[in-house]
Amino acid sequence: MATIEEQVAELKTQLDAMQSKTPSNKLSMIVFSGDLDKALAAFIIATGATAMGMEVVMFFTFWGTTVMRAKNKNVGGKDMMGTMFGAMLPKGAEKVKLSQMNMGGMGTAMMKALMKKKNVASLPEMIALAEELEVKIYVCEMSMDLMGFKREEMVDYEGLSFAGVATFLEEAQNSKVQLFI
Amino acid sequence: MATIEEQVAELKTQLDAMQSKTPSNKLSMIVFSGDLDKALAAFIIATGATAMGMEVVMFFTFWGTTVMRAKNKNVGGKDMMGTMFGAMLPKGAEKVKLSQMNMGGMGTAMMKALMKKKNVASLPEMIALAEELEVKIYVCEMSMDLMGFKREEMVDYEGLSFAGVATFLEEAQNSKVQLFI
Amino acid sequence: MATIEEQVAELKTQLDAMQSKTPSNKLSMIVFSGDLDKALAAFIIATGATAMGMEVVMFFTFWGTTVMRAKNKNVGGKDMMGTMFGAMLPKGAEKVKLSQMNMGGMGTAMMKALMKKKNVASLPEMIALAEELEVKIYVCEMSMDLMGFKREEMVDYEGLSFAGVATFLEEAQNSKVQLFI
Repeated sequence: MATIEEQVAELKTQLDAMQSKTPSNKLSMIVFSGDLDKALAAFIIATGATAMGMEVVMFFTFWGTTVMRAKNKNVGGKDMMGTMFGAMLPKGAEKVKLSQMNMGGMGTAMMKALMKKKNVASLPEMIALAEELEVKIYVCEMSMDLMGFKREEMVDYEGLSFAGVATFLEEAQNSKVQLFI
Repeated sequence: MATIEEQVAELKTQLDAMQSKTPSNKLSMIVFSGDLDKALAAFIIATGATAMGMEVVMFFTFWGTTVMRAKNKNVGGKDMMGTMFGAMLPKGAEKVKLSQMNMGGMGTAMMKALMKKKNVASLPEMIALAEELEVKIYVCEMSMDLMGFKREEMVDYEGLSFAGVATFLEEAQNSKVQLFI
Repeated sequence: MATIEEQVAELKTQLDAMQSKTPSNKLSMIVFSGDLDKALAAFIIATGATAMGMEVVMFFTFWGTTVMRAKNKNVGGKDMMGTMFGAMLPKGAEKVKLSQMNMGGMGTAMMKALMKKKNVASLPEMIALAEELEVKIYVCEMSMDLMGFKREEMVDYEGLSFAGVATFLEEAQNSKVQLFI
């Protein structure tokens, strides 16, 4: 039988081990979609969570990477496929479209007008707010490589870095909330 | 060196702090999609989880808000945009469509016929079941405002309320499982 | 007032209770989508997570079930609806299409060519890797029943079984990370 001191020491060890496994008050999101409506939802959740004191991490992958392209950065030196993808895919937050009711751009324009009228922040404004609130952004390196996007054509955003899925998973493992958007 | 009594008291404090941070046996879902198939999946998960003793919270936002519209409530006093959105977007669970293979409504009709034949509950039936099982439903106020939906045109559902993203995040923070659908 | 021995025993009980409620280092995913891009994302996350020592569980439901169909297994004895669905829906990982920019199959073919050029594993290769890494796969029984899919037309995959939503929820409840794809 262990002495009471030994028992207390053992409890302490177990408690410390549990504490180190407790997730942080963090929200991790994968933004797979490159649609205006889903990107808006992602940033509304992100900025809302920081306002509640949560740490927020967004991982932009696949079509989602297009949301983080800068509208006025042109980079050369792309191969044919890269040039094609670059031209066909939306060039940043001002160009992405609704997932539904886009109607050749008319629906998207209507939604933007509506948001303005209702004083809902636009997607570029939401991104600027996220930057201010120190939302951490990762852009998926593999997706960029696939689509031929270069680092230099992404937006200027303090706290944006380039990473792979392992980096995201480490964050997610240690988060209270995880979402795939 | 602390006495054994002090050490035990300290452990107690730490344990209590950890316990208060342990998430509830709760499932929180954001239902962003207004598609029949995704709404069905959401309610199958919701009712399944309550059957397992979990508490369930659903937050209907963006296109998802259309799922909770009542089929036979007409409200006046909308502006032009609101009237347009109201007319273009599906009026509730009986009107939402498949995300794929809708084929001008034929695919959706086929799927509904198939569900009936296979004794799978329809979406309106699933919603009634969720109400019975006390699944809590929030409808996103900002989305309703954007689309011009009024509170009075939503379904009668005990436990439905109107809320913003912060309310959802508080639930999600305190949930074991979170999903974005 | 409890003796110090009683207090320590009580702490031990509470700690054990908390430990039994701590989620495993596990990732649970619902794969609802039957799109090539989303299925790829799901398997990249799944194999990445196992590489980090996580246990991974995937639950294929609705359109997602089509990803797990074998390309060269033909089964008879289907009713008319089952035969129709069987013919209209993609027959496995080699046949699923991009959610966007499919352009009558040209976009999907381009993406596959690009992946090959960039040395990104194809979807069938990712599935084989997941099998090797012992990713557990469930295929949703209710979805299969709806679409008329039979067990014999699913791929050979060690660790694939057929289950309902309750099985998935039990895994999810006990997971650190949950995603709906």
